[in-house]
Amino acid sequence: MSATVEFFWDPASPYTYLAATQIEALAARHGARVQWKPFLIGKAFEATGNKMPATVPAKAQYMFKDLQLWSRHYQVPFRFPKQFPINGITAMRMACALPEAAVGAFALAVMRAYWAEGADITQNEVLQALAGGLGHDGPALLARTQEPEVKERLKTNTEEAIRRGAFGAPSLFVGERLFWGNDRLGLLEEVLAGRL
Amino acid sequence: MSATVEFFWDPASPYTYLAATQIEALAARHGARVQWKPFLIGKAFEATGNKMPATVPAKAQYMFKDLQLWSRHYQVPFRFPKQFPINGITAMRMACALPEAAVGAFALAVMRAYWAEGADITQNEVLQALAGGLGHDGPALLARTQEPEVKERLKTNTEEAIRRGAFGAPSLFVGERLFWGNDRLGLLEEVLAGRL
Repeated sequence: MSATVEFFWDPASPYTYLAATQIEALAARHGARVQWKPFLIGKAFEATGNKMPATVPAKAQYMFKDLQLWSRHYQVPFRFPKQFPINGITAMRMACALPEAAVGAFALAVMRAYWAEGADITQNEVLQALAGGLGHDGPALLARTQEPEVKERLKTNTEEAIRRGAFGAPSLFVGERLFWGNDRLGLLEEVLAGRL
Repeated sequence: MSATVEFFWDPASPYTYLAATQIEALAARHGARVQWKPFLIGKAFEATGNKMPATVPAKAQYMFKDLQLWSRHYQVPFRFPKQFPINGITAMRMACALPEAAVGAFALAVMRAYWAEGADITQNEVLQALAGGLGHDGPALLARTQEPEVKERLKTNTEEAIRRGAFGAPSLFVGERLFWGNDRLGLLEEVLAGRL
C-alpha cells in the first residue's frame, strides 16, 4: 500500500506556498499520494499559544530574505504581497466543497495567485476566476461556502490538525509523524524513502 | 580569498549542537573556514522579543521528536538532557579565553558532553575536564573567565550578533547574510557553492 502525505495548508502562510510547490513531485518520487487539507492556521495559533513568526521584528526581517532564498532555490516565483496577513477562509471553504482529487490544484492556484502574482485572494471575484480557470463552476463553488457541512469540514480539519499536534503551517503528516514547515521536506522525503 | 562562516553558538541550544556537528565538514567542502563565536542566546531573545521555541507546549513536543530525527539523519548521538534549559555562560567565557583556532573543538566538546552524554556543563569540574581533554590547562582557563576582557568578549559577540540581525541560535553569517537554524545549512551550502 502506498503512503499518504497529509498536507495541512492555509494560503496565508508563505512557507506553505513554498512547500506546496514541491510536495506533489516529492511524493510522486516515492509512490506516495498527497491529501490536501485546508485548516485555519490562526485557530492553531490560538489553541497552542504559538504566534506568527513575523510578530518578532528581527524574525520578520530575516523571513523576507529567507523566503526569497527558498524561492530561488526552488526556482518558483515569489513576491511578498502588499496585504499581509490575510484571512483565507473563503478560499479554504471553496476547497472544502471540491472533490478531494481537485483540492491540490485549487490550493496551488490560490497560493500562486497570492504569493507570486499579487492577487487579493480575499475577494470573491478573484476566487471565482481561479476556480473557473481550473474548470470548476466558480459562482456555484462560492455559493457552497455557505453550506453548513462545508463550513464544518474546515472546522473539523482544523480541530483534527490541532489534536494531532499541529501548531503552525504547513503541517504534514505521514501516519502520525508530524513534519512542520517547508524546511522539513528533506526529512519527510527520507522517511518516505524508508531511510529514516 | 576563501569564505568565512561565522558560527554564533550557545551550548544551551540543541539545534546549535546539531549544526555544530556538521559545519566544519560543510565549510571544508567549499574551502571555507569557520569562525566560532559564542554568544548569549538568552540576551538575543530579550533584545528581540523572541522566545525559546519550547515555551509553546505543542512545539516542545514536536521538537523532541524532530531533534531525534535530525540526529539519526546526521548519525550523531543525541539524548535530551535532564537539566534544560541551562546557562552556558562559564563554558562560553572559557571559549572566549581560548585562541581562536581552538574554539571550535572546545565548543563541540562542550555541546557533545551536554547533548549526547548527559554531562552537566554548568559545573566547573566538568568544564575543566573537557578543556583538559583537549590539551588545555583547565584550571587556568577557568580562572580566566573572571578577567574583564574575557567577559567583555562574550558581551561584545552577543551585541554584535543582535546588531547584525540574530534572534535565535544557531546564527550563521556568510558576509552579512544571516542563516538561522540547523535547517538552513542546506541553503548556506548552496551560497558557499555559488549556486544561490
